[in-house]
Amino acid sequence: MKLVSFFNRSFNGFPPSSKLLLVFTLSGGGLIAYSESQSNSPANSIENERLKNKKKVVVLGTGWASTSFLKDLNISSYDVQVVSPRNYFAFTPLLPSVTCGTVEARSIVEPVRNIIKKKNGEIQFWEAECTKIDAANKKVSCRSVIDSNLLGKKEFSLDYDYLVVATGAEVNTFNTPGVNEHCHFLKEVEDAQKIRRSVIDCFEKAILPELTDEERRINLHFVVVGGGPTGVEFAAELHDFVHEDLVKLYPMVKDLVKITVIQSGDHILNTYDNRISTFAETKFARDGIDVHTGCRVLSVSDKEVNMKIKSTGENVSMPHGMVVWSTGVSTRPVVKDFMGQIGQEKRKVLATDEWLRVKGSENVYAIGDCATIDQRKIMEDIAAIFNAADKDKSGTLTVEEFHDIIDDIVIRYPQVELHLQNKHLSSVTDLLNDPDGNARKAVDIEGFKLALCQADSQMKSLPATAQVAAQQGTYLSRCFNKMDLAKITPEGPRRFKGTGRHEFLPFRYKHLGQFAPLGGEQAAAELPGDWVSVGRSTQWLWYSIYASKQVSWRTRVLVVSDWTRRFIFGRDSSRI
Amino acid sequence: MKLVSFFNRSFNGFPPSSKLLLVFTLSGGGLIAYSESQSNSPANSIENERLKNKKKVVVLGTGWASTSFLKDLNISSYDVQVVSPRNYFAFTPLLPSVTCGTVEARSIVEPVRNIIKKKNGEIQFWEAECTKIDAANKKVSCRSVIDSNLLGKKEFSLDYDYLVVATGAEVNTFNTPGVNEHCHFLKEVEDAQKIRRSVIDCFEKAILPELTDEERRINLHFVVVGGGPTGVEFAAELHDFVHEDLVKLYPMVKDLVKITVIQSGDHILNTYDNRISTFAETKFARDGIDVHTGCRVLSVSDKEVNMKIKSTGENVSMPHGMVVWSTGVSTRPVVKDFMGQIGQEKRKVLATDEWLRVKGSENVYAIGDCATIDQRKIMEDIAAIFNAADKDKSGTLTVEEFHDIIDDIVIRYPQVELHLQNKHLSSVTDLLNDPDGNARKAVDIEGFKLALCQADSQMKSLPATAQVAAQQGTYLSRCFNKMDLAKITPEGPRRFKGTGRHEFLPFRYKHLGQFAPLGGEQAAAELPGDWVSVGRSTQWLWYSIYASKQVSWRTRVLVVSDWTRRFIFGRDSSRI
Repeated sequence: MKLVSFFNRSFNGFPPSSKLLLVFTLSGGGLIAYSESQSNSPANSIENERLKNKKKVVVLGTGWASTSFLKDLNISSYDVQVVSPRNYFAFTPLLPSVTCGTVEARSIVEPVRNIIKKKNGEIQFWEAECTKIDAANKKVSCRSVIDSNLLGKKEFSLDYDYLVVATGAEVNTFNTPGVNEHCHFLKEVEDAQKIRRSVIDCFEKAILPELTDEERRINLHFVVVGGGPTGVEFAAELHDFVHEDLVKLYPMVKDLVKITVIQSGDHILNTYDNRISTFAETKFARDGIDVHTGCRVLSVSDKEVNMKIKSTGENVSMPHGMVVWSTGVSTRPVVKDFMGQIGQEKRKVLATDEWLRVKGSENVYAIGDCATIDQRKIMEDIAAIFNAADKDKSGTLTVEEFHDIIDDIVIRYPQVELHLQNKHLSSVTDLLNDPDGNARKAVDIEGFKLALCQADSQMKSLPATAQVAAQQGTYLSRCFNKMDLAKITPEGPRRFKGTGRHEFLPFRYKHLGQFAPLGGEQAAAELPGDWVSVGRSTQWLWYSIYASKQVSWRTRVLVVSDWTRRFIFGRDSSRI
Repeated sequence: MKLVSFFNRSFNGFPPSSKLLLVFTLSGGGLIAYSESQSNSPANSIENERLKNKKKVVVLGTGWASTSFLKDLNISSYDVQVVSPRNYFAFTPLLPSVTCGTVEARSIVEPVRNIIKKKNGEIQFWEAECTKIDAANKKVSCRSVIDSNLLGKKEFSLDYDYLVVATGAEVNTFNTPGVNEHCHFLKEVEDAQKIRRSVIDCFEKAILPELTDEERRINLHFVVVGGGPTGVEFAAELHDFVHEDLVKLYPMVKDLVKITVIQSGDHILNTYDNRISTFAETKFARDGIDVHTGCRVLSVSDKEVNMKIKSTGENVSMPHGMVVWSTGVSTRPVVKDFMGQIGQEKRKVLATDEWLRVKGSENVYAIGDCATIDQRKIMEDIAAIFNAADKDKSGTLTVEEFHDIIDDIVIRYPQVELHLQNKHLSSVTDLLNDPDGNARKAVDIEGFKLALCQADSQMKSLPATAQVAAQQGTYLSRCFNKMDLAKITPEGPRRFKGTGRHEFLPFRYKHLGQFAPLGGEQAAAELPGDWVSVGRSTQWLWYSIYASKQVSWRTRVLVVSDWTRRFIFGRDSSRI
């Protein structure tokens, strides 16, 4: 039973319209897989379990990155403590479905303690927030998030040998006035539950006696700010909820409902292939979901959204019943503070190197949305690379010498590979061709620089997605598991500036596609190999993948039974 | 598909250990029963639907009483509006199961709009609280409970021809200091959800580093005040949750958990047969649940429960991690205010007559926990009865004359029947026997008084249970449906003071038994015919009955799948 192998398999094996896949996925493992190892830890004191010789690893967070790290970590060599204000892992791609009750909140969460129980209880979990990372003293300060009368002090601190920061990010309001006060977010399970109650509130309020039709209409105006995958999926879910379920229960106001999506860019889903973007816009237009592109929100009040239409410069205000804000992420305060300590105060996001080690600190790793990989530019090292490659110190690089080193270059600077693809060059030696395209036997340093000077423009930072976070967690656990071995037999590329090899291969992200459910049993998917799939069959592919990617058999059974229940009974409109 | 026929069937047909019953119950109706009538109401304006010639009925509440009233009401003769702050009906007997996640909150609720949708949308529902009953002007004032930015005024008022008060009751704190601030209640679905989160909080806090064992022990001390069915069932559920699920996830603190039940009476479950009470106490002692009987709680603080031990007069205080208060019900402020208007200010509970009409007002009915039936004493009417029975005005009542009237007496004064049973009299004419037990041909007024003077001592007020509320709702809907007919052909007993007959038979409660689930798949049941059943088979009977009594196929499927899930996967410990 795999915990988080999110998208680790290629989609290529899935026929796009196989409805049977869902059933197959479910019956593949069987409930027997859930048999649990009972933990036999000694009772009484907590501390006496911590073994002395193991290296202490503290992990901050219980999201995708952290959970996939923990899942694959070999705990026989590490003493692991996990700190997070959430004692559960949430399958976040299904959050938009929770907002409308298509799946229940509880169906997409798995207690962290269930996950770590499978490690024989040798991982400790503390439900607390990390308030301070003290890199100098290798210590983190934590505070219990439980706000109650319970005894005992709330603060405690933990020492670490290695720290893994996987706290995720918070919502980015771009300092827009009124957003924190008057908008719903969609990052946590609680957010989704609140949205669900608020949607019902809007209907219950709109239907009350003694309201004018205009008041009812405004109360039933749902505004989504942000045309990214989350915002679009929420708008689509809400449309389905309203038109499949709520109109039957609130028939008198069904014609007054309106859903509007506000997007600052020119298209919604603009990180997707433009065929998907167009499909989504057409579908929304047909469904009566208003899409306002090229609009920047200036402020939000309890009654109105104020925005500027970029093309005309005009300011308009739009009365609303409810606003959902879904426009990207920003850095959490604790990470911001940590960045100050390690000389990263000028950056927007915590930077790591290609091995996910936080720059400017030792033994601290950062994975998931809280950090970004600061890919080394090849042009910064170009002289060192030339020197290392020029074995005979002739001042020129022959094709043979170049061949000798190109693999290490491509591993260390993945932008070179993208550059090759982009230039449609069939062989790496083509890089050494002269400006007219003729093959050369050797190049000097200037020629070498010219050959690679465009490569760095291919660098892109990775998106803040579950897929990236999960892959980083898995990568890091593999490094931790081989830490001792890699010191003796390093597996990474050659060091161009120093001597020897890097201990590990740098992290490489493998993009395995992305989905955009658009409501009405229609979805769009961008699959590897530039393959785009839209329509009903894609929705079934979505159901299959999302069911198979659940973290446990419990959540898998629950999510599928939620979908089944929705098909039979519709969604629940109780305000709880 | 029956909505609320709670316990309307006798249990006698059920073999006590039939596990198959559950399956049978479920397959009896089939999903086909869920087919829904689409509502075709006109759009746009809400008010234009209200038909002019129908009598306006306003119903306050969406609990057992109100829902069973609405379910059976013939809406072709009434224009019905329902007002309640909860837009759903909750199957309250399963609330203790929700506290520990044995069933999910959403599985025991059914949206009111789903229920009234089956009436072709001709019932209006307003999600609002009734703030004032104005009996003089036949008007109720309401206020929307939605606390948000939404447009439109919150207050509105409704006119009625008939008012049905079914608002239920609120928790009775007996004005004990600190209870509102520091105790959990268990009356609403939200209460159960809060308890669930708090239990997890106690564990997450107790396991944190840097606490002493004593602090952990206090944080894990769960106190239940009230040894009635709800409190006992919660204690049992919590014990199962802790010992079946949580000890595996929090192994280090498993020996520190304690559950204590505080009961003011001498026994827990003291409204049940004492065999059940003893069984429960033995089971709890075996499970390690402390039961403190004969203790009165004086105050509750955030850290301690202070109580007086009645037998010794000693005051003791008990540190706690969490307190659940479950000690009976009291009148809501809006009902209290209404009682003031109609001369009931000295009463504790709103009083109705035997036809569920509120005393001192016209066309107002009250059903469920918000009211109590003020049964007429036979001794108050004894002279009128004698005069009515003494047809020949001879001053004595012959056996024939008595026979002539006894049926009406028994219907009007049900305590007479209980009196007969209690005296073990085989025939009603035995009532007329002389003090030595010899049959008499006739009695005078003094002899007649003597024969019946003890009957009134048999009067008991009905318990505040779902069973009573549901039967009252069904009874009242039947009266409403026959309102016109009964004016022409009254079906009630003879009026002894006036002439003619009462229009309707008075309400008679038929007690069909009660359950007490005690945890560990053990339950106790008191069944009709003085039959007591305890043990594992009773738990299966409980599952069967509770599954069959669900208000809809949706909740039935959900509740049963929750139970199944719990058997397979255990309960979820995520703090959401």
